[in-house]
Amino acid sequence: MVEKIRVIQVGMGQIGCKIARLILEKHHLELVGAVDIDPQKAGMDAGQVIGLQEPLGFPVTRDLNGTLQCTQAEVAVHSTSSTFGQFKNQILEMLAAGLDVVSTSEELSFPWIRHQEDAKELDVSARQAGKTILGTGVNPGFLMDTLPLMMTGICEHVEQIDITRRINASTRRASFQMKIGSGMSLEAFYAKMAAGEMGHVGLPESIGMVFDTLGMQLVNDTDEVEPILAQGLIDTGFYQVQPGQVCGLKQVAQGYNEKGIFLRLTFIAALDLDKEGDTIRITGSPDMMVELKGTHGDIATRAITVNAIQRVKDAGPGLLTMRDIPIITWR
Amino acid sequence: MVEKIRVIQVGMGQIGCKIARLILEKHHLELVGAVDIDPQKAGMDAGQVIGLQEPLGFPVTRDLNGTLQCTQAEVAVHSTSSTFGQFKNQILEMLAAGLDVVSTSEELSFPWIRHQEDAKELDVSARQAGKTILGTGVNPGFLMDTLPLMMTGICEHVEQIDITRRINASTRRASFQMKIGSGMSLEAFYAKMAAGEMGHVGLPESIGMVFDTLGMQLVNDTDEVEPILAQGLIDTGFYQVQPGQVCGLKQVAQGYNEKGIFLRLTFIAALDLDKEGDTIRITGSPDMMVELKGTHGDIATRAITVNAIQRVKDAGPGLLTMRDIPIITWR
Repeated sequence: MVEKIRVIQVGMGQIGCKIARLILEKHHLELVGAVDIDPQKAGMDAGQVIGLQEPLGFPVTRDLNGTLQCTQAEVAVHSTSSTFGQFKNQILEMLAAGLDVVSTSEELSFPWIRHQEDAKELDVSARQAGKTILGTGVNPGFLMDTLPLMMTGICEHVEQIDITRRINASTRRASFQMKIGSGMSLEAFYAKMAAGEMGHVGLPESIGMVFDTLGMQLVNDTDEVEPILAQGLIDTGFYQVQPGQVCGLKQVAQGYNEKGIFLRLTFIAALDLDKEGDTIRITGSPDMMVELKGTHGDIATRAITVNAIQRVKDAGPGLLTMRDIPIITWR
Repeated sequence: MVEKIRVIQVGMGQIGCKIARLILEKHHLELVGAVDIDPQKAGMDAGQVIGLQEPLGFPVTRDLNGTLQCTQAEVAVHSTSSTFGQFKNQILEMLAAGLDVVSTSEELSFPWIRHQEDAKELDVSARQAGKTILGTGVNPGFLMDTLPLMMTGICEHVEQIDITRRINASTRRASFQMKIGSGMSLEAFYAKMAAGEMGHVGLPESIGMVFDTLGMQLVNDTDEVEPILAQGLIDTGFYQVQPGQVCGLKQVAQGYNEKGIFLRLTFIAALDLDKEGDTIRITGSPDMMVELKGTHGDIATRAITVNAIQRVKDAGPGLLTMRDIPIITWR
């Protein structure tokens, strides 16, 4: 009998709870602990927090040590925060506790450009601890970086890569509808945008991974957000959006090499958006077009995170990214 | 300055010559030798055999030793034969000469099911030599195995995978048109099929890679070919096909797990075929559909072979397959 991998879920928000639920379904994994700073959750049985009928028999603890006093584990799945400043010490704590780390934090998917010093520190710490850190997810981590990179493998030459992701937010959870500005006034949207709080996190990370992997110099990069306004009344069940109010956003990030734009990433998420799906267009030899339907962000992110656990346990030490390891598959 | 990787091309047929030409275009590679058993080519300048205007300054030799007497190299690109019986000793010779090997041989793409003993022997020899062997290509090697495996990485659960590749052979080289039976009578097609000489090589290898990587037991597998008949007169420039003669083939390979068909691979190649392209349909959570246009088999195969050279040089020793190494990208 193969021993199960013992996993602790760190971060029991919406995504974290769904990851925990998926871990429970996998024969090769065992969920042995759960951590969340929320005082409302701490002390509750983890099963109750996840929303199971039955208790799991261990509580959510407010910090990692609380859980490690009661149990041993090999891998931590980390889904607390997108931004480096908030999660770096959490990762260091997990390494110090002897855990491999799979993280959904967008800025960890390819931190080698925008957070080079922090990335180096994490890498050194991981190597010293003999442990692995991997940032993963569907975007960043898959659709706009690893997958198009893989597609270039069958190209003799690549001139340009153009990727568009269209999400119909009406079919997504309330927090996602909120994140893209649903129901905001134009003024409120621009104010939040000016504060750097509007838009999807991770497009620059995807640009960084693509350029670095192809050995191409990133001469310049841009990342711009604009609102999409409702034409008629939209009612999602969570939000009622009046005509003229914001119902989503369009974000375009571009990476330039010395010849001009090499990589363009367009992220469109709006209520009642038609033609949901992703396209990867590669100009080169050969010209290629890849169209994807059904790459549901929430499902895909929790799936790839859980599917990565075995791979991260088996990988060599260091701060790795999706282009450093063999492909992650369903298990 | 980074040192170039010194490469020998073994097999100077149509594919081999195009690989050699692409190697010459790459800044990180240097073509230093060429081998072919054809007495017509042996002794000729390699540039002349490839079809260049200028000589390359070294001859095609009839065996590997002939080339190794004149030069040193690190990697051999091998494209001589699809079948294990014919290429195994060639690979062993390359390992003995201290070369890493990238091969386009279909049966090497995942030999662990149909050629288990031979695969073990190659793996042991590669490890003893401290060298790497990788079988790659677009099909098998990418479209029907590595890529769909990667797509399962964003799935919580997978029930079934269904892949179809449609090739309009009218736009391909004469030898490919011949291979799919263009212009044959139905009787001749069936006679060749009965001799096991009709159909695309590699579908069982793709099935093997998918099942093995997903940790799924391959209970049964099938691989069946049927002819496609011309409805009207077809003239490709290479072949004139009369109505009722063969103008291509349809091949369906299926892999069964204990529940039934888990993986279905459909390969259709015919003259004047419409809707060229590939589809990967995954039934599971989420349901996904990937449609690809432009994955030109000849271009894609020589591209991924050349793009694999650096990866194979950097990889650890052994007989590896595409699911064992980080993604191959354009360079």
